[in-house]
Amino acid sequence: MRVGILGYGNLGRGVECAIKQNSDVELAYVFTRRDPSTVKILTPGVPVVSVSDIENYKDKVDVLIICGGSATDLPKMTPEYVKYFNVIDSFDTHANIPTHFANVDKAAKETGHIALISAGWDPGMFSLNRLYANCILPEGNDYTFWGKGVSQGHSDAIRRVNGVKNGKQYTIPVPEAIEAVRNGENPTLTTRQKHTRECFVVPEEGADLAKIEQEIKTMPNYFDEYDTTVHFITEEEFARDHAGIPHGGFVFRSGVTGWEKEHKHVIEYSLKLDSNPEFTASVIVAYARAINRLHGEGVNGCKTVFDIAPAYLSPLSGDELRAHLL
Amino acid sequence: MRVGILGYGNLGRGVECAIKQNSDVELAYVFTRRDPSTVKILTPGVPVVSVSDIENYKDKVDVLIICGGSATDLPKMTPEYVKYFNVIDSFDTHANIPTHFANVDKAAKETGHIALISAGWDPGMFSLNRLYANCILPEGNDYTFWGKGVSQGHSDAIRRVNGVKNGKQYTIPVPEAIEAVRNGENPTLTTRQKHTRECFVVPEEGADLAKIEQEIKTMPNYFDEYDTTVHFITEEEFARDHAGIPHGGFVFRSGVTGWEKEHKHVIEYSLKLDSNPEFTASVIVAYARAINRLHGEGVNGCKTVFDIAPAYLSPLSGDELRAHLL
Repeated sequence: MRVGILGYGNLGRGVECAIKQNSDVELAYVFTRRDPSTVKILTPGVPVVSVSDIENYKDKVDVLIICGGSATDLPKMTPEYVKYFNVIDSFDTHANIPTHFANVDKAAKETGHIALISAGWDPGMFSLNRLYANCILPEGNDYTFWGKGVSQGHSDAIRRVNGVKNGKQYTIPVPEAIEAVRNGENPTLTTRQKHTRECFVVPEEGADLAKIEQEIKTMPNYFDEYDTTVHFITEEEFARDHAGIPHGGFVFRSGVTGWEKEHKHVIEYSLKLDSNPEFTASVIVAYARAINRLHGEGVNGCKTVFDIAPAYLSPLSGDELRAHLL
Repeated sequence: MRVGILGYGNLGRGVECAIKQNSDVELAYVFTRRDPSTVKILTPGVPVVSVSDIENYKDKVDVLIICGGSATDLPKMTPEYVKYFNVIDSFDTHANIPTHFANVDKAAKETGHIALISAGWDPGMFSLNRLYANCILPEGNDYTFWGKGVSQGHSDAIRRVNGVKNGKQYTIPVPEAIEAVRNGENPTLTTRQKHTRECFVVPEEGADLAKIEQEIKTMPNYFDEYDTTVHFITEEEFARDHAGIPHGGFVFRSGVTGWEKEHKHVIEYSLKLDSNPEFTASVIVAYARAINRLHGEGVNGCKTVFDIAPAYLSPLSGDELRAHLL
């Protein structure tokens, strides 16, 4: 399978690394909106091509992995490039998924391509676990916790505060809340009871630290509904201790069965990830394999992880899967 | 969807309870090898029919759920009844799945029916999690722990010991082993390091307790490779504290990503179940919905959980799933 990567940031680089771990997948091209001569990639011998020439490559790529942002890039890019390629994206603005799906589905069907949107872990693996668990336990409660991990949105918000030179925000699930859910107590949890926020801030020289802390902690939408801790650190500490992009989280379904609903059950799925973009990329590459196969069987239109039978993700045959993994 | 249950033991009763929780599913008949007049079921108005008459019901049932044992029942029953019905079973002898699959697939295709074998949680949900996690993290290690829960096989073995009136065995994962796996340490674990076994035994009057304990702890295949604890209790204590059939377990995948494999990731799936048969039954009913739909689309032959796109398990539409669960 020949894969093209469109957009070479953290996610695109993660896709490149994931391809290296899958011997049936080959990186064919990296497409970029930048000047291609300025983009240095890790894989030897793979051309970097300007996105303005991408149409010329439509027969040279089996699946195009679109590594763009959900706010403005993907709503335009995915419906556009599915005209020329089978495509996959990691669109993660949950509220806008139905619209994005409809746009991509229409464009995909017009040209007979297949697309898969919202691959990754949330949406993605977390969604799958919510779906499976809801189907198994129709009477119950869902809980999702995120972290410990870096929130890009909250880190960006910190960095916009006056006097802040650099900053990173970690979302942390409250251990007592997780324990209560895990014990089947079905707690009702406020926003504050589910997560805390921890900020590491490099202040500009002479900045008013108390003012920065106050401004962060009271920031509407981002921090005001949470218990937030702010640590001031040096640029050196920041580089040494906060260079990574870890993330993760927990999905629970707590439900009942039995004639009188007398039995409790807890289903838990959790991820602990050193690198959010590399894990997301690894999910994407597995689903790229799946849609390439499905397209070979004549399937087109827009899909999500809900529509893909798990066996399509694997390079192994049905016989091998049944013998070794069932 | 009209469901028939074949075999009314713990699992059959669990299926009956699960059907009550799914408004699009109707229990049509219970088929039994016993004298139907001796079988009292929970659902009012549903006929109990002798299995010898089952062929007469082939147009009155959309999916037949076969609730038999994996050792001798299912290898015969599933290939037999798929001649007349779409069927689903919970065949759980992992080593014999390929043979069972081949037999059921042949019989199903000859009559245009669909079958799904090995539904439940292991095989079943645990298998799905192994598959997804292996596809996402191709370089890594798998770990499965069972418990805390009742092992029927080990409980049966205890009850065969001379001087034992009643007994139950719990399989318990070793917490330190789970912690090491969860921390990404990729430990190499012996059988003894993964699980301990705890036995609750009601002795016959005047039995030699030391002899019973010794015989249990040294029993080949069942206990000799484990650290086993034996508690002697009264019949009253047994009835009060050990009437349930809880189970559960953990599936881990611990893997690496990155150009130099520099990032670690841990995927964990776990179940904590008050009732093993009721949870298994709940999985089966969701997959019964899926195969009924697939049969409506013209699909036949034998399937496993690997072959079913998750959306087929849900009574909700694709639009609803994307809006609420993705």
